[in-house]
Order: sequence, then C-alpha cells, then structure tokens
Amino acid sequence: MRKATVITTGSEIVEGLIINSNAQHICRRLTETGVSIVRSISVGDDLESIEKAICEAFEDSTVIVVSGGLGPTKDDLTREAVARSLNRKLLFDPALENRIKEKISKFHKAPANTRKQAMVIENAELIENPVGTAPGQLIRDGDVILILLPGPPQEMKPMLESVLSKLSNKRNCSINMLFFGIPEASLDELVQKLPTPKWLKVATQATHTDGVKLRLYAPSEYSTELKKFSEQVIAKINEHFVGFDNTTLEEVVVRGLEASGLTVSSAESCTGGLLAAKIVSVPGASKVFKGAVVAYDNSVKTNILKVREQTIEQHGAVSEECVFEMAKKVKNMINSDLSVAISGIAGPSGGSKAKPVGLAFICLWDGKKSYIKRIFYPQERNMFRSRVVSTAMDMLRRYIFKLPVI
Amino acid sequence: MRKATVITTGSEIVEGLIINSNAQHICRRLTETGVSIVRSISVGDDLESIEKAICEAFEDSTVIVVSGGLGPTKDDLTREAVARSLNRKLLFDPALENRIKEKISKFHKAPANTRKQAMVIENAELIENPVGTAPGQLIRDGDVILILLPGPPQEMKPMLESVLSKLSNKRNCSINMLFFGIPEASLDELVQKLPTPKWLKVATQATHTDGVKLRLYAPSEYSTELKKFSEQVIAKINEHFVGFDNTTLEEVVVRGLEASGLTVSSAESCTGGLLAAKIVSVPGASKVFKGAVVAYDNSVKTNILKVREQTIEQHGAVSEECVFEMAKKVKNMINSDLSVAISGIAGPSGGSKAKPVGLAFICLWDGKKSYIKRIFYPQERNMFRSRVVSTAMDMLRRYIFKLPVI
Repeated sequence: MRKATVITTGSEIVEGLIINSNAQHICRRLTETGVSIVRSISVGDDLESIEKAICEAFEDSTVIVVSGGLGPTKDDLTREAVARSLNRKLLFDPALENRIKEKISKFHKAPANTRKQAMVIENAELIENPVGTAPGQLIRDGDVILILLPGPPQEMKPMLESVLSKLSNKRNCSINMLFFGIPEASLDELVQKLPTPKWLKVATQATHTDGVKLRLYAPSEYSTELKKFSEQVIAKINEHFVGFDNTTLEEVVVRGLEASGLTVSSAESCTGGLLAAKIVSVPGASKVFKGAVVAYDNSVKTNILKVREQTIEQHGAVSEECVFEMAKKVKNMINSDLSVAISGIAGPSGGSKAKPVGLAFICLWDGKKSYIKRIFYPQERNMFRSRVVSTAMDMLRRYIFKLPVI
Repeated sequence: MRKATVITTGSEIVEGLIINSNAQHICRRLTETGVSIVRSISVGDDLESIEKAICEAFEDSTVIVVSGGLGPTKDDLTREAVARSLNRKLLFDPALENRIKEKISKFHKAPANTRKQAMVIENAELIENPVGTAPGQLIRDGDVILILLPGPPQEMKPMLESVLSKLSNKRNCSINMLFFGIPEASLDELVQKLPTPKWLKVATQATHTDGVKLRLYAPSEYSTELKKFSEQVIAKINEHFVGFDNTTLEEVVVRGLEASGLTVSSAESCTGGLLAAKIVSVPGASKVFKGAVVAYDNSVKTNILKVREQTIEQHGAVSEECVFEMAKKVKNMINSDLSVAISGIAGPSGGSKAKPVGLAFICLWDGKKSYIKRIFYPQERNMFRSRVVSTAMDMLRRYIFKLPVI
C-alpha cells in the first residue's frame, strides 16, 4: 500500500484565517483510493518551509501531494521549492505560456506574470487545469510520485481526480456506524473484547451530543469478514445502534415514523423549538411532523398548553407532572399520534438546589402510555440543550423500533 | 517572536473524515497572541508518527501544541509519544484518577480505563478540563513549551485560552466585525478603496447564513490607528454592521430587545422552530422571548393560528397574506410586543413555478405596522432554512435599532 504526505501551503491556512478544506478533501480521496496518509502538513508561503516538508515526506512517503503556491504572484513558491528539493531545473515552456495567455484573455486582460506559471520542473508531466490558468505538475522520482496542484478548491478537485488512477493499487473498504447512549470508552472496550482480526482497523469518535461514531476498515479483500464483524458489534449493543454511514438520529426517527405511519408534535420549554427544528431539518419531515408549541415562558405553558397553575406551584415547571401535562395537551391540540414534551433548566442562571442547572424532564406520550425520562447534564447552555434534544430523539427512536424507551 | 508547530492527531483527520477545525482554531488563536506558526501537521493515531512530528517540531519551534489523543482508548497515544520524545517517565496520578472517576460518575458508570487518563508526564503541569474528563498537560523543556490538549473542540478551546497568556510576548491587536446583508466581495472592495496603511492586514470570511466577518489586524503599537480605521469602515455601511468580536445576530437581537424592554414570539412553518431555538440559544433569552407556534402542517396554521382557509386557498400558505395572519395571531395568543412569522418552501420537493423551492415570506408585526419581506434563496434545504432565520433575525435587529427594516 502506498503511503502519502499531503502538503497544503498558504499563510491564510497557518494563520488560521481559513479552514483547510483542501487537506480534508485530498486526504479523503487518497484514503478512498487505497493510499494510506502518513501526515497532512500545512506550511506558510516560504521557500524553506515548503522544501523542508517535501524532504521530510521523502523519508516515508511514495506519494506526495502539494496543493497551493502555483499562482502568478511572488508568494507562489511551490515550483521553486520542489525543483530545489529534487535538485532539478525549472524550465520555461513558451508554448504553455501561450496557452495560459489565451485562457486569461477570455476573462480579463493578461497580467504581466504569466511567465511564472509557465515554469515547468524538469521531466514533469503537466496536469490540465479545466477551470483556472495554472496547470498542475506530476513528477516521478524513483518510486515516488509528486503531484503539484493549485490551491483554489474548484481547480484542485477535478485535477486531483484526473491523477488518482495513477496511485491506486488496492482499495480499502470501511463500515461507519452511529451509536447513542453508550460512552465512547465502553464502545471501544466492547469492540476490543471481540476477537479482532489482524487486518481490522478501528476508530471511534465521540460527540457530546450526537452520539458515538464507530469506523471499521480493512483492505477490500476482507469486505465480507468486515461486514460480519460489524454485525457482531451491533448484536452486542443493538439498542444503542442508530444506523450506518452519515445517518443521524433525526433521520432515523423521521424515516421510522414514516414507515410506521405515525405523526409527532412537540411542546418545548428550555430547548426552545430545537427538537422541532431538528426533525424539520430532514427532507420529507412534512409526512411525520405536524407542529409544536414552544412554551418558553410559563404564561405560554398555562395559557396555551393549559398546564394547571397548581402543577407549576406544587412541582415547578421543570417536573414530571408538568411535562406530562404539556405532552398530553400538545398531542390533542395538534392532533398527532405521538407527542414529546421537554422542560429543563439550561442556565447559566435559574437553578436551585432542588432543581439545578442541567436538569431536564422529557415526556413521550402516545395517548395511552407516557414515558418520562429525567436527565441531568450540567454543561454549557447550548450543549445541554442539544443533548436534551438528542435524548428526546433517541426516545422516539426507541419507541418506533420497539426498544426499551427509558 | 515565538515560533510554533501545531500537531493535531487522529485517523479521522488524516483520512479526511472530518474537517480539521481544531487546527484552524489553534493557529488563529496563536497568531492573535503574537506567536508565528511554522507548520500545522496532522498525523494518525500511531506512536511513531506523533513522536516524529514532535521531534521535527523541536528543530525550529519553541511552542508545540498537540491536540487529540488524550482519551481513554488504546488509540490515544499522545501522552506516550510525548514522554518518549522527551525521554521522560509517564507517572500514574491516583488523585487525578479519583477526580476523573468522580466526573464520569455524574453522567454514567465509570469504564475500566480511567487509569490511562490519569497518566501524567514527569514534571508536567495539569491544565484543567472544564467540560470533559481528560486534563491537558503543559511541559517545559528548556525554552520550549509543549501543550497537550484533548481533541473535542468544546474541551480544547477553553483549555487553550487558559494557557495562551504563558506564550505571548508581543501581541498583535485585531478588530473583528460582523456584517449582514452585504456580499463578501463588496465588503472587501469597500475596505480596499479606503486608504489602507502598510501595517494593516485585512481578512474577510463569508458564511452563507450568518453574515460576513471582517478582521483587521496590526502590530499592537498601531491599536489606536486600527480602531480609527474600523470606524471608517463601519461609517460607510452602518446599517449592515451587526457587532464586534464573536457576536451573533441573535445575541445582538436579544440584548437589543432587553434594552428596549420588548418581548417577541414567533410563528414558524418551514423553519420549524429554528428562529425560536436560535433566540433561546442566547443566555438571558427568557427576558425577551415568550414562546412560539411551529405551524408546519397547514392544519396547525388554520386550527391553532386561525389562518383563514380562504387565505390559504387563494394565496397559498407561502404568501404575504398568510404570514401576516400568522404574525397577528401568534402575537395575540402569546401576548408579546413583537411577533415574527415565517412561511416558505425548503424543498427538495413541494415547489411550483409560481412558488419555487427557495421562496419564503417573513412578517414582522408590532401591533401597528407590519413589515413583510420576500426572500428567494434556492439552496439546500437547511442552508435555506438558516438563511431565512438569519434574515428574520436581521429584520428584528433593524427594527430594534430603528434602521430600515425591509
């Protein structure tokens, strides 16, 4: 398997002014082609740093992709840096300059420095740029392939595609899964306890609010075994398994409600409509979601959702009793099959000893049975709100798929 | 000026599965602190690569920041790699393990591998983690400072802030501003047309939905001149200026409503509660936001918001007439000073020639006057929804600050 170093150049990257989406794209496409990434490195627009990065890459990589620094300005130093690291000449190609001038004249008058973009590293193959002016260059040095691409993503991406076939030998296969309600460490422990074959690579990634991602991958000849392994993992913790690939809790819930022919509504206090908004983020939500009442102020709870003032006086707005009344009323008002009600204390202020910041109650009501969950997640206001919404979404998922709801 | 290497670890980064927002954040904050970034490098979760990156960093950097690899799983190798590169011991800290166990027990039962997170590099100072379990570590080696931070951004960011003061010698000063309703290119052109001094650096950053950020920065001795320059920019496009630093439209709106003693409610169709949720995301929103009705299904528009069936038949649910009725009713129901109603076609399906996907109407109603804006933004469903919410938020901002609302 080929090993690669990805080098992205530009002061705007190392100063953190822009996000390095090029590095992500190149790394992802190389990985998908079966090339293993040793490192991805960003350096500023200076000759020495670029040269140093290339020399380091030669120590352990047989694929080196450099993006950026092929433009016409004095900041654009990639050609010079690569020529120096390889001890090759930089040659002026007059025919290339003519083609560049022609391209530029289509858009605006030719600037004086087309010469720079027409400098080609000795023995390089040119990579055509279908969008902009600067061509890429592909250089072979022993068994190392160097690929120089421009920085603008819309130019870089098609040019990368045009050379990927020269790099692939063996492809990887992978399975991505999302779990909810299980800590990352427990998921990892569970996977490690299974008999893990040598060819298997495992990566977990936790988000505080959306669940834990598990990625299993292997050389493509093991795809059948990989699938079997993933099934073993799922079998062990079936109730936590949300779905494959880039699925989300809300997508699984919307598709699940649709398949069951059920509709839902919500009554929300501390989450302020975020559960509704998440459901609506899924295309086709209109088939399953009817509406919501955001009862942020207690007057909305009593006047519109008709929560009894006595309930709020006796138990508080953040209580099992209150969310139950909210859920019952919103279901009737909106005429949905299911309803979810949420009330909690997001903070930073408003907490008490009995009802601290981070406490929430969620009620799922189907007209016959209520499921009430208490959660305590004392984190920053919006992390808390997201977590409460994900937990409510997971209760819906569990209800739909006939798993224990609480 | 100190020079820094930023190292971010994780297979999900080098395989291009996630975008490396941590690298951007760390690079930006170090640059703002007056530290110059030599390189930003990402490596997978393997001991050798991390160790190699650290050794290379020692060649030319006196600040080394490593983010990632401090978790509890066997993939988490940063502690080991740093200990090996520095030839220091890795010591178990039982008191730290107890603190970690205590933190974990708040959320779920402790997994077996807390021991790993309690391993401390010889002579390291711990950096407190206010959000998650793994503490950071700060190690001094001669004049080099190594900073180890966890990978999850919400943990990493506050921890980075807590150590930045140890790195700064000469600070840059900068002014960050947010504008809304002006294209990035126009803002850039406007700034370039002003007489720009030599020491000034300018960066713009457009988001599709939240506005355009403008960043001006300079060596700190020019702070007075920088402030004057920023005032010139604002004076030119005052009505588009939202605020300084990391402010958001919703924050400006909540603080503005609070200062004016006004409350608001919303009636939302295509945005599904997202306007309400955005307002509630701001701490203290309870002083100005009372509630919302999410009328996603037309039955909710007619039954709860009492939109006349005739209005929907004649003009459609996505019409000036419908949002006006929604706004009037929700203001009365919830008894707020202002109300905002939104109806639009988010797609991917549901559009027609007369009412295409990407069309929305927004009505702001103060009980006396209605302001109705038509927007057409034919983009992906959730980009469209965010844009509609931002536009509604900007109408509120303009109303509060007595600027032209539409």
